[in-house]
This record gives sequence, structure tokens and C-alpha cells, in this order.
Amino acid sequence: MGAPRGLVALTRGDPSGIGPELALKAWAALRADATAPAFFIIAECDYLQNLSRRFGLDVPLATVAPSEAAAAFPRALPVVGPQRGVAGALGVPDVADAAATVASIETAVELVHSGAADALVTNPIAKEVLQRAGFAHPGHTEFLGELALRFYGRKARPVMLLWSPTLAVVPATIHVPLAKVPQLITRDLLIQTGEIVNADFKCRFGLAAPRLVFSGLNPHAGEAGHMGREEIEIIAPAIAALREAGIDARGPYPADTLFHAAAREKYDVAICMYHDQALIPIKTLAFDNAVNVTLGLPFVRTSPDHGTAFDIAAKGTADPTSLIAALRLAGKLAKTDA
Amino acid sequence: MGAPRGLVALTRGDPSGIGPELALKAWAALRADATAPAFFIIAECDYLQNLSRRFGLDVPLATVAPSEAAAAFPRALPVVGPQRGVAGALGVPDVADAAATVASIETAVELVHSGAADALVTNPIAKEVLQRAGFAHPGHTEFLGELALRFYGRKARPVMLLWSPTLAVVPATIHVPLAKVPQLITRDLLIQTGEIVNADFKCRFGLAAPRLVFSGLNPHAGEAGHMGREEIEIIAPAIAALREAGIDARGPYPADTLFHAAAREKYDVAICMYHDQALIPIKTLAFDNAVNVTLGLPFVRTSPDHGTAFDIAAKGTADPTSLIAALRLAGKLAKTDA
Repeated sequence: MGAPRGLVALTRGDPSGIGPELALKAWAALRADATAPAFFIIAECDYLQNLSRRFGLDVPLATVAPSEAAAAFPRALPVVGPQRGVAGALGVPDVADAAATVASIETAVELVHSGAADALVTNPIAKEVLQRAGFAHPGHTEFLGELALRFYGRKARPVMLLWSPTLAVVPATIHVPLAKVPQLITRDLLIQTGEIVNADFKCRFGLAAPRLVFSGLNPHAGEAGHMGREEIEIIAPAIAALREAGIDARGPYPADTLFHAAAREKYDVAICMYHDQALIPIKTLAFDNAVNVTLGLPFVRTSPDHGTAFDIAAKGTADPTSLIAALRLAGKLAKTDA
Repeated sequence: MGAPRGLVALTRGDPSGIGPELALKAWAALRADATAPAFFIIAECDYLQNLSRRFGLDVPLATVAPSEAAAAFPRALPVVGPQRGVAGALGVPDVADAAATVASIETAVELVHSGAADALVTNPIAKEVLQRAGFAHPGHTEFLGELALRFYGRKARPVMLLWSPTLAVVPATIHVPLAKVPQLITRDLLIQTGEIVNADFKCRFGLAAPRLVFSGLNPHAGEAGHMGREEIEIIAPAIAALREAGIDARGPYPADTLFHAAAREKYDVAICMYHDQALIPIKTLAFDNAVNVTLGLPFVRTSPDHGTAFDIAAKGTADPTSLIAALRLAGKLAKTDA
């Protein structure tokens, strides 16, 4: 369980994006808050020092070993090597930084695995920059699945959860064209997703009997087959299988009436069929404080629900609300898990 | 323009649903409110009388000619024939009522066309009941298109708008399976939809230069073609054509970040690609007071944003908020239009 506050390993993300700036601001917000976890960042100390000065943040930094991070946190943002320097400028990413960006993620998982940290929070990366450097994964989530295998020896099936205090949603399919969604929705996918969501809402969120609802794929959840048959042929049978396994799964419900205040009271998490069906309601209700959580991994991982924002990275105006929420939630989930 | 308050013709809808009950409740809410339009209902007076008694609503009724309705409204709910009686029971629709349900809609359009009423509000119908009686239209909207041709001699292309004080959305495709959406999204469809929305936001909503935004079809609006090419090949060219025609159309934007409070300030109406993309945000934000408006017709038509609710029709507990909002908006749009 680490220190009483919990200790989070934060990755650097793309150094030309807003991640490092947000880390400095999040430290200032959380340093004296005993309800939040302590955290360290795996990044270049000099680079952070320059940023802190440039944006007038005056955040003291301390290069430490992971074991010293919790003690250092109240007086300085703990930084765990490397010291290689950064090639890109703010807003102008450089492929030469890709290796260190990836190494920061690997080191973070290694430290969580070794017990040196309780949970992992990742700052935004730019997939296209990493991929130009040979990174073979579609994104963070899939890479973390590989690291789970490498460090824990466990094959993981990562599931994306978007969490906020008002709504939690899981898109069963994510970054695929809408035209491909219907063929990707299978009973196996929905059953596996439901099982992972149920298991992690128990062990990480601490719910004794999580209440899962599924949306339909079609308007009005197909209206008894008049507007599509996936609800009848795929989604309802998957829900029935989950219920037989003792999981409180319900639906499929029409997606448009699933997210108003009274409807939200009736479930803990909504499993949706595709990206926008899940992300529209949570970003409409909780634009600034939604947190991305990866379920199905052998460790706790959260991240802010935004990208590198290269367009504003040189301004110093980035809003740390989502990173702060991600750090808080990671600390909470790690404690429940422990 | 009719009476100073404006006068709305309200259809009965399915008599076994909640429509008639809502009409009684809406009259009680609006009778003394000079900011709202007066209205009459085209329904069976005896049936309404029984309902009023059964639910303890004590709404006085007055069978009147349309020309007497505005004057009668402050003291009684004006009812315009027929007097045929009703076959169905509350919650148990009867196909024998279908003809009168359809006739109520036809009469309402006829009265708006003749100038006896300023606008039309429709109570919910049950498509499957009407279709068993030979009604050949998918729903209200398409039938109103036919009535526009019959009474006004104008071929109409009805466009569905969901309106609330916080958000207005138009689904470019509506009641079709999700798998069919990608092939239905064409430049022509989007251009025609944009033109109709622009024209009606000018003439009915009174905006000098309506600000239209379009959502993308795919996650992240396709992310520059990485997750679908419809944005590049269809949606962006349609927007460009609308802009060339002098219409303030923008996008396509990722749908998930289009509906939070700060984003909503930047447009008057969002044109979305399919049902749930449009209806999830408005029903999440404005579940009780969203109004369905049909654009592209030669007359003003609104309706409450819910169905017949047969399951609660016998209880007397139906919430008239959406019908009241529909009546108010119809009165407002008719005034702007005149």
C-alpha cells in the first residue's frame, strides 16, 4: 500500500505537449492535501525546471529515488531520472523524444510492479510522433497491455472506462470508423467487457454488486427489431449470459434516455456500443473532470481525458483539472485494490 | 397572426396514451399565462370530460368553433369536434380509434392552412396502431409532409429539430439501423438539411445569421482520415457548399466535445449524423423540456419529445412539461413567422 497517502508514478507524456506543465500545476494543487495521493514524475528535471520558470510557477523540484518520493512530496515535486534532455520545443514535438516518452511509461509500470509506487497515471502522448519512431501500438492502452504481460506475466485485455463523479461509461468499441462498429459488436466482446467491468468495479471501486447497464446499438435500442436486430441477436443474449454468471447486467436500453439525472441513479456504469455513444454524455456532463481509467490490467492506471494540446502548450494556460482528478482517482483505486 | 396570444391547434394523439391527460394539465398551467399561446384540442369532448373527472383535474371544457377558441380559452379548454367516442381504454389502444387519430391531424393542418389557427402541436401517436389500420407513413413527420402537399400544394422535405433552451440539434438521419447510417450520409442530404435549418432558423426563430455546426460521423471526426473518410469526402464538402451559399456552417467537429457548456455557446444549432448522436446530448441536458419541431414545412409544427406512454396512461401521473414547452414554442415560432 506504500505511504499512507498512496504514491502515484506519473509519466512525462510528450514533452512538447501540456503534460509537464500540468504536472507542475497538479503538484501545487495537491502538495498539502492529505486526501490526495503523493506522486512523482518520470521526466527530465532540468526541462521541468525551465518550464516552471518560464510559466512563473515556482515549483521546487527534487530529483529522488522512488523510495524517497513520498517523503519529498510536501516540499517539492519529486522527479525520478532520466536526465537526457529534451529535443522538441513546446508545441513542436520532436521524434527524437519518442524513446524517452516510451521509456517513461515502461519505467512507471516497472516501479508499480516492484511496489515502489501504488498506481500509474499517464500524461498525454502523441501517437503519430511515437509511431514515426517505430512505436507499434495504436495507443497507450494497448501498450499497457503489453507491459502487463512483460512485467506481470499476465495477458491482459485492457478496457477503457471514462469516469466522473456523475457518470461512468465504457465504450465496447473505441477508435474505429462508425461503419465498422456493427460487425465488431459480438457476444464474446460484450461478455468479456462486462466481466472485466464487473470485476474491476468490485476490486478497485469497492462495490459489492456493481450495477451494469448496456445501451442498444440502434435508435430506440432497435424498437423490438424494427430498426436493427443487433439488440435481439447479440446484446440481449450477452446480457443474459452475464446475468447467468451472477452479474447485475441490464438492458439493452435506448442510449438517448440513459444519461439524464434520474436514469443515472439506477446504475454504476453504462457499457456503450461505440466511442461517441459513451463519450458524448460524459463530456457533455463532465467536460473538465472526466478521467480515463484502464480496466482489465494487473495494476491501476488512470489518465487525464485530453490530449497533448500542442496548440496551447507554449502558453502556460493549460487547465490541470483533469490530471488532478486522474491523480486523485488513481490514489483512491490503489487503496481499494490493496 | 390570430389573437394577440396566438392560437395553437393541438391534436388528440392516441386516446389510450397520455396525450389527452397532458392537454388537460397543460390548459390548467397556461390558461392565465398571457406569455403562452391559447390552444384548442381536436378530440372527443365527452372522453376528455371523463378523463378530467377520473384524474380529479376539474378542467372545464367548451365545445367551440375554431373561431371561438381564443376567447373561450381563459375559462375552459376549447374542444373542436368530432363527437364520435373512443374505443380504446387507457393504456390499451384500439385500432378502431386510428381513423379519428389521423383525422385529428388532418383537421389541425387544415385549420392552420385556413388561418383558423397559427400553429400545430401534435400529441403522441402509436405508429404500430395506426399502421394496423392502414396508415402508410413511418410517422408523424412524413405524414405532415404529405399534408403540406395536400393543403398547401407544396412538396416539403420535413427536417426534425430537437429544441431546448440549452441546446438545439438536428439528426440528419433518424429512425434507421446504425449499420445503414454511413451509406445514407450524402452531400445532398447534408446540403439540403443545412439549407432548411438555416432558412427556418431565420424565418421562424428570427435569427439574422444562424450559426450551424456539423458533427463528424466517426470518432474524433475521423482524425484526418485515420478513423473513417466520410468527414473528408462528404461532410466537409457539404459544409463548404453551404458556406459558398452564404450560410454560416462550420465543422465537422468531434461529436463528443461539441455539447459541453462552453462549446454550446458557439452555435445556434448542431446538425448531427444520426439519431443517438443528436438525441443523447439533448436528452441528457434537457430531458423534460425538449421539444420536437418539424422544419421544412409550410406551417409551424411542434410536439412533445416523448411517446404515448401506454404503461402509465391509466395512472394520471403523466408530466405535461414537454407538451407545455411544445405549446409555448409553437406560439413563439408562429409569431416570428407571421
